[in-house]
Formats: sequence, C-alpha cells, structure tokens
Amino acid sequence: MKVAFIGLGNMGGPMVRNLLKAGHDVAVHDLDAHAVSEAVKAGAAPALSPKVAVQGVDVVMTMLPAAQHVRTVLAADNGVFEGIARGITIIDSSTIDPASAKAFAGLAAERGVTFVDAPVSGGTGGAAAGTLTFMVGASAESYAHVKPVLSAMGKNIVHCGETGTGQVAKICNNLILGITMAGVAEAMSLGERLGIDPAVLAGIVNTSTGRCWSSEAYNPFPGLVDAAPSSRGYTGGFGTDLMLKDLGLASDAAKLARQPVFLGALAQQLYQAMSANGDGKLDFSAVIKLYRKD
Amino acid sequence: MKVAFIGLGNMGGPMVRNLLKAGHDVAVHDLDAHAVSEAVKAGAAPALSPKVAVQGVDVVMTMLPAAQHVRTVLAADNGVFEGIARGITIIDSSTIDPASAKAFAGLAAERGVTFVDAPVSGGTGGAAAGTLTFMVGASAESYAHVKPVLSAMGKNIVHCGETGTGQVAKICNNLILGITMAGVAEAMSLGERLGIDPAVLAGIVNTSTGRCWSSEAYNPFPGLVDAAPSSRGYTGGFGTDLMLKDLGLASDAAKLARQPVFLGALAQQLYQAMSANGDGKLDFSAVIKLYRKD
Amino acid sequence: MKVAFIGLGNMGGPMVRNLLKAGHDVAVHDLDAHAVSEAVKAGAAPALSPKVAVQGVDVVMTMLPAAQHVRTVLAADNGVFEGIARGITIIDSSTIDPASAKAFAGLAAERGVTFVDAPVSGGTGGAAAGTLTFMVGASAESYAHVKPVLSAMGKNIVHCGETGTGQVAKICNNLILGITMAGVAEAMSLGERLGIDPAVLAGIVNTSTGRCWSSEAYNPFPGLVDAAPSSRGYTGGFGTDLMLKDLGLASDAAKLARQPVFLGALAQQLYQAMSANGDGKLDFSAVIKLYRKD
Amino acid sequence: MKVAFIGLGNMGGPMVRNLLKAGHDVAVHDLDAHAVSEAVKAGAAPALSPKVAVQGVDVVMTMLPAAQHVRTVLAADNGVFEGIARGITIIDSSTIDPASAKAFAGLAAERGVTFVDAPVSGGTGGAAAGTLTFMVGASAESYAHVKPVLSAMGKNIVHCGETGTGQVAKICNNLILGITMAGVAEAMSLGERLGIDPAVLAGIVNTSTGRCWSSEAYNPFPGLVDAAPSSRGYTGGFGTDLMLKDLGLASDAAKLARQPVFLGALAQQLYQAMSANGDGKLDFSAVIKLYRKD
Repeated sequence: MKVAFIGLGNMGGPMVRNLLKAGHDVAVHDLDAHAVSEAVKAGAAPALSPKVAVQGVDVVMTMLPAAQHVRTVLAADNGVFEGIARGITIIDSSTIDPASAKAFAGLAAERGVTFVDAPVSGGTGGAAAGTLTFMVGASAESYAHVKPVLSAMGKNIVHCGETGTGQVAKICNNLILGITMAGVAEAMSLGERLGIDPAVLAGIVNTSTGRCWSSEAYNPFPGLVDAAPSSRGYTGGFGTDLMLKDLGLASDAAKLARQPVFLGALAQQLYQAMSANGDGKLDFSAVIKLYRKD
Repeated sequence: MKVAFIGLGNMGGPMVRNLLKAGHDVAVHDLDAHAVSEAVKAGAAPALSPKVAVQGVDVVMTMLPAAQHVRTVLAADNGVFEGIARGITIIDSSTIDPASAKAFAGLAAERGVTFVDAPVSGGTGGAAAGTLTFMVGASAESYAHVKPVLSAMGKNIVHCGETGTGQVAKICNNLILGITMAGVAEAMSLGERLGIDPAVLAGIVNTSTGRCWSSEAYNPFPGLVDAAPSSRGYTGGFGTDLMLKDLGLASDAAKLARQPVFLGALAQQLYQAMSANGDGKLDFSAVIKLYRKD
Repeated sequence: MKVAFIGLGNMGGPMVRNLLKAGHDVAVHDLDAHAVSEAVKAGAAPALSPKVAVQGVDVVMTMLPAAQHVRTVLAADNGVFEGIARGITIIDSSTIDPASAKAFAGLAAERGVTFVDAPVSGGTGGAAAGTLTFMVGASAESYAHVKPVLSAMGKNIVHCGETGTGQVAKICNNLILGITMAGVAEAMSLGERLGIDPAVLAGIVNTSTGRCWSSEAYNPFPGLVDAAPSSRGYTGGFGTDLMLKDLGLASDAAKLARQPVFLGALAQQLYQAMSANGDGKLDFSAVIKLYRKD
Repeated sequence: MKVAFIGLGNMGGPMVRNLLKAGHDVAVHDLDAHAVSEAVKAGAAPALSPKVAVQGVDVVMTMLPAAQHVRTVLAADNGVFEGIARGITIIDSSTIDPASAKAFAGLAAERGVTFVDAPVSGGTGGAAAGTLTFMVGASAESYAHVKPVLSAMGKNIVHCGETGTGQVAKICNNLILGITMAGVAEAMSLGERLGIDPAVLAGIVNTSTGRCWSSEAYNPFPGLVDAAPSSRGYTGGFGTDLMLKDLGLASDAAKLARQPVFLGALAQQLYQAMSANGDGKLDFSAVIKLYRKD
C-alpha cells in the first residue's frame, strides 16, 4: 500500500520504520528536517508539505502532539485536504479530544474523505517493537480497511465503535491509570509510614482486591519492580506532562458532557503540583514524591 | 487444639464452623444467644463470658465490629484478661486501627499474653468456604504458632511484619480498593456519556494500563461481570458502610501519622454521600450511581 | 463619544442603554435581530456587521459569551479588524481566558489598534442599574482613555494592571467565590444535621472567622437571607452553568500555568454534578442540594 | 462566685487571671506544677486533684486539649465527679466533638450535675484580653446561669442551642475557615502566577464576591496585611496542627452523621501535607506554601 505519514516524532518515527519493514511505500512529512532525513534513510520518500505527501496514496496517517496541530495539517494552506483524493481514509493516531475527532471527521466527509481516530497505547517502546495497541473509532467498513495497515505497527487493533470512540477509550483508560497510580502512591506511602515493609505490602495488594497495573507492573515505590521507572529514578516511561495532557483531555470532555470526574480532577491537580515542582519530565509514577521524602 | 472464639457474627459464625471441621475444640461467646446456639449446634461449647471462654484454652480468637468492642472483650469485667493464662496467644481478626492493635498488644504483654492482629479479606463467602486471607502482624515465632489454627479458616496466611502490620496491610489495600472502584465508576460513566459501548471500554481497560480488580472482577457498570454485585442490583458483596469504615480507619491512621491521603479522603466522601443518600447497605460498587442515572 | 457595541445579550442590552443615557452615540450589532431592534428603540444605530459598526467610532465595545465569539467578531470576514481605524481602542467586557485576551491584544497591535480587557461583575442587575464593576487590564494610558466610557455603565472602574489582568482578577475572584459557596453549603448542612439552628449558625459564622460574602449576603441555606436566591427557590442570581464556565477558565489557566488548584478543581466537579443532575440553570448557591434534602 | 478551673494551658492560664480580676474565687488544678504556681501567684488556690478543686464551688470550668482529657478529668479516680455536689454546673471550654459533649452531659446528669459546652474563639490574644467569644450549648436556664461567669473572660457569649451545639458552631465555623483560607491561598497564588499584582488582586476580592475573613483580615499572601501572620513568617496566629485538629473533629462528626464534607476533607489533607512537610507549628495561612515558592 502507498501510505502518507505526517508527524515523525518519538512515536511517528519508529511507526514509519515498521510500515516500511512491512513492505509499504511511505511518503513522509514533518517540520523537523532531521526527522525527515532519518525516515528517508530508512526508505521513506520525503514530501515538502502534507498536500504533496498525500497525493496518490491509499491511506494517510497523522501522529501529532495535539488537536490544533491536526487541524493545521489537515486544513491549513498546503494541508492534507488540498491534496487528498476522494474516497481515501485518514487515520489519526494523535491523542486528542473526542469532539475534535468528530469535527475533523465532519470536515473530511465534506470532501468525500473518511477520518478514523486511532490513538495508541504502548509508548515509544511499543512503537519501536511494533506492539502498539490501536484504539480505533470507525465504521465497521473503515475498520476493516485500516486494520491491515495498523497491524504493521501494532499487536492489538481494537474496534471501539464509531468515530471518536477510539479517543474516548484512550482517555477513559488513562483517567483510571492517573487515579490508580496516585492511589497506589498514597497507600504505599501510608503503609511505609505505618511500619510495614513496602515489598510485603505490594505483595499483599497484588494478590488482593487492591491489585492494579500501577501496583503490579509499575509500582511507584522505588526498588519493588525492576523494570519500572521507579527503580531508575523515575526516568523514561510515561512523562508526568503527558499524563497531565491526557487527564486534561478527560476533564475537558467531562466538562463538555456535564459529567463529574471528582477523582480525576483531583489527580490532575496532583500531577500539576508535580509539574509546578519542576518534575513534569519525570515518569508519572514520581507522583509518590508528593507523599514521601526520598 | 482448644480454641476460644469470641464474636459470632456474619464472619465469626462460619469461621467457628471451619475450626470445628478441622477438629479443634471450640468454646464460644457472643452477646447474641441465637448466634451462640447456632455454634453449639455445630459442636461448640458455650461460655457465659469471655473470662469463662478462655479458661484452659491454647489460643483465643476475637472477631468483632470495632476497636471499642475488642477493648471491652479484653479488658472489661469478666473479660479475656481476667481468665486467660500466661503464655497464651490472642488472635484478633477484627479490622481495627493499627494504633489500637499495638495498644492491645501492650496490655496483653503486661499479663504475659501475646496479642496478634490478623484481619481478613475474602468476605462472608471466604469465611464460609474457609478460603480467607489472613494478614498477620506478629513476631516470627508467634506467626509460626498461629498459622496452623488460621489455616483451618483460610487459604493464604500472610506474615506482614510485627504487631499492627496486619491491620496496616488491610487498610492500605482497602484504601487502594476504595479509590480504584470510584475511579473505574468515574471512567465507565464518562465513557458511556461520550458514546462508547461500556463492554468494549471495559475490555480495553482490562487489557491495558487501567486494569485493576475493580474493573476486571468487580466492574461497577451493570451487566458486565455476571458474578459481580453490579449485575444483581448491587446486593450482597462488600457493603458501602463497611468500605466507609475501612476508609475511615485509613484516614484516621493517616491523620495520626501526619500523612496526606488526598484521593482516599475524597473517595471516603463519595461513599459518605452514597450513605447519606440511603445507599449505605448496597455494595460499594454502587458508587457509580453518583455518576450516572440507572 | 461615538461607540460601537457588539453583543446585545442579557448584559450588553442594558449596558448600551446606559451608554445612550450618558449621551454617547452608539452603533450596535448582534446576530439576534430582536436584540438589535430593542437597542434601536432606545436610540442606537443598527449595523449589519461588526465591520460596518466600527467605522468612524472612537471606541469599540464587545460583550460576548466566550473567547471563540470574540475571535470571530474581531477577525472573521466582515469583522472588527476589517473596519476599524488605526489608533482606536477595543474594550472587551466578555469573560474569557487571560491567554486569549493577550492573543487578541497582539492581533490588534498588528493593526495599530489597542485591545483592553474589562470583564465585569455585578450581573444583569448591575448592568441595568449602571453599577457594574469593571476590572480593566490595560496600560495606564489606555486605562485613562477608557475610564470615562466605562463610567457610564459602572460604579467601580478598577485598573488591574497590563492587558489580561482584568481577566485574571475576574477568574481569581470567582475561583474563591465558587469554593467559599460550596464550603458554606457544606458547613451549613453539617450544622443542620448535627442539630444547630441554621439561623443561629449563620449568625455566629458571620461574626467570626468563617464570615464571607457567601455566608453573609448570599447564604445558600433557604430562608436566611431574604434577598438571596436561596429564599426564592434558587431562581435568578448567578447560574450554575455560568459559575462552571468561570471555574473552567480558572482551572484551564491554572493548567497552562502548571499551578495546582486543588479546591477549585473539586468545586468545579461539584457544580458539574449539579449540572448533570439538571440543575445547571439554578443559582449556583443551589450547590447545597448536593448536601441536604429539601 | 467560687469557681474551680481545671486546665491551665495557653488558654486556661489567662482565663483564670481574668476570672480573678473580676473578683471570683478560683481553685485551680493542672498536672503542670509550674502552671499551677503561676495561677497561685495571680491569686488562685491550688488543688491537688479535680476532686478536691470542685469541692464547695458554684461552678466548674474545664479547658483541656481533647475529649479524652475531659473524660479523665471528669470520670477518673479523684476526678470531678467524685467531688462535685448535686446541682452544680460544669462548663467545658475545650474544643471536642459534639457527640462526646452530649455523652459527658449524660454522665453528669446521672449525678444531678449540669454539663454545658462552651468552646471559644479568639485565641490566646482573646484569652489574655478577656475578649473571647463563647459558643454555648445549654438549656436557656443554664445559659442564663453561666453567662455572668463567662462574661469575665469574653465579650460575646452566644447561646447556640441545646448541649453540644456550642461544639457544632465551633467546628462548622472552622470548617468554613479551613476551606476559605486554602481557597484564598489557591487564588492568590494563581493570580500571582498569571501576572496580577497580589495587592491589587486582594483589593478587588475584598470589595467583591470573593471577600472573606481569610482575604481581608488574614490574607495568606505575605506582606498584604500587616497584622497577619503572613507578614511575620507565619509565626504566631492559629497553628496548622490546631486547624488540623478542628477539621478532624468536623470530618469525624460528618462521618458519624453520614454527611459528606468534600471540600473540608480535601482541605484537611492540604493541612496534613503541610504538617508532613514539617510546617505544623506555622500559622495555618502558611498553606499558601503548598502553592507557591517563597
């Protein structure tokens, strides 16, 4: 297949390499010339604008920081909409708010183009290994169409429902994640203060009703899980500022829907306090630093 | 072994039956004559007071609603301390605050008696089936001593550390549980409002970083997990007022330790709002009713 | 002076009447023809577009629901920027985020135009009576320039600092307001539940360290303050959805600034819960309904 | 009148001096010999136990740290109940939970004694100046009886209702205080971050709907109110650990009453975080340190 890929950051770069490995023909565009030249070395064809990149392709992928960038790439001068043919599908793997995803789908439809939201989980490690999870918001037909392309980059390609539901799945999962991580940090710190060995406490929680990904795979207490950022000074992993972005999308979507998110809003403030303390680049599990001294 | 068991409620009753089945000799006491007569039918010997019950036994067990009841049973007139011999061990399986557990251990030590805290998880189902988890706070020696007795009533007998740490483990686990359940309720309700199929959302969460016992085994959204209270009108299970008791113990212990529990304190208020709404007897997963109309 | 006024809603309508009463010459524009004809009856001149309205005026005023409307009125086709002369000042009395206010000032400056933010407090009553408070973000020179115009509509014209600080003052004040009102609701409900006469409690609070505008002038407990919405079924006053808008602006500004607003974020969720319950149109003091049955 | 006064701490000491100045005959008791000798120098008669102190007096006053101390002073060996005559009134000015106050009243009634709760506001300054506010929970008859005694020590003697309502008034007022102070800290810090002059912001808030005792008389932002602890490094004033005690009483009373206190519980955690940071002895307005760097 001929694929245009726009957005060659920490995620987009390795995703393109996996598309190329799978035998796809990939035209790439990014504002960062270095990122483009890396992709070209891997076999991609450079394009000077989104408009140029999308000409003659079967499918377009975008992987961008926020909704405003997606809007620009699609609708600004020399954007995707100026070059794309009717009937083609755009797959946006950026994490953005569901309302914007629906709005972009509407703009695309006016041009006879299909827009599919397909945010990912799995991080840069999953992008490199080709083991991402894609949460796809699309009609059944569009889902069937995009699945083979996405399979080159991911292991789980989940159909979430109509357009926008991919984003809904992503932000709802990360809403739980942001809450449970802070909750585990709170309980591990309390336990330590009350005199229980943190390793013993984690062992009990992980075989009991408190067990969760944040306690088992990614425990924020230092030294309990070798592979977790907490065992290497909270470096790498999923940055606090990225968690803040996702909780912000969740609380914004909740505001629009007039739906309370009590714990999510409070968790957001906790990560915001971390960011205010200068820890925004640390892995989000460093939220435990709000509760205990090192 | 000869065991005295004081407190024959929903938990204590079936625990005594499992002790008897395992061949132990059990003397029982409770203020409720009916509960005593049920235990007697199962083979226990009735005692008119804790003082009488503990005479000549090898080990004493207590299973009571709150610390004040434990204090009365131990130290009031005709209480355990009046009848117990030096060298005997008291196992308290009530869920109480760690500070009280330590205080009771101190009072016991003054009498040459050992006090072990061993709160349980597993609920009335686990009590009946003999599959409880016991979280034991005791010296290594005392742990070795009580383990065979507890094995008659439970499947996992976990040594948490010194006296009081059994209670610490229990309240820290349930602190996480109270937070994650409300967090899952929040995210499931938000997802529903934003248009994703709740079953699809739960499926994604359960294979992703949001997964937790509250989403997998006990999802609060009705109809997703057959065995969960959410699929039977939030009846049975773990009552909201019991969760409130445990979160109260956690926030009280945190207050004493000058340790913040931001999310725990907020979760406590959410369950309190449920209780104020008259839903205190429902399973705690009914917290989702604060977020969505049925 | 010759004034263009764009936005003739519940606030803008009466503000125009006060400008006319003060002898100003006013050209008006609104998408709602009825609102325009009411202003025309009062003596204003109708204009078919912002572009037309601003031609030849000394000052331009805008009073619109949100930043997106201000952007459209200023920068869209037939907008203010197409018709305004260099050197003229735009006064925006909409409540919007400080960052947008600064961005609009930047766009205006590119055209040799001054943009001043001047959000108001005092509600529709103050707009009708000409007793609004204007919180003005402007250079000292611009403040001196706009003060006489604003004085026709308001009693207190406060200079808050440079552009954007008018909005900062507004959202910070309303952040406190949203928190204190919910706090007073919480304490009044707790007091009632614990058996104190609410009137006695309010009397004590109002002469003690708990006193605040929300307890004195606007107590949410029904029947204590005759003039307050709580004494007329929470009708009139400051709608919950408007409070939600302002708390949303505050928490968004805090998010951008990486500044935690723990209580503000939680208060926002409380009002959001009210709105979810269908009470978004009630006065915001109806937040007490989350705490007590009528 | 002949008064017994038990509890000669930072508050009780100066209160006794004012009783003596007003011509009362005062017998005092405290575990701290130095505090007793200071009172004796001022003219009081020392007593070796509460039992001895209360013999032959017209009224008994207690001013103690917490409910457990009141219980001991009243009901332990050599306590008040052993020495007090039928018909005498005990005035307890300690700040304790309303349920304990009612329980003590019940114990007193069994002995033909009247128990009145009369917690104070005004701090050590008010105690020294004799300008305390007493919040009195008592029957109308008892209130009339104790008012003249209290007038020697305070300026406002407020009748709150039946026994226990004095404590209810105190904790409800301080619940609002704890919330508004943190809310003002939050908004002042946000405003500073967003570029408004804190003095200007405080001026606007204090003439608008955000005004409250915490912004006007006791603004937590340093340098705005000369007489406030924020202008002297948060020393003196009302200690964070005392605020924590009162918020703890409020949240405990709310828990018993099954009444949610969302903001109060969160505010409590904020002060707890301060205390965990080692700032428990600072004035409670130092909560602003959680939001901004000095």
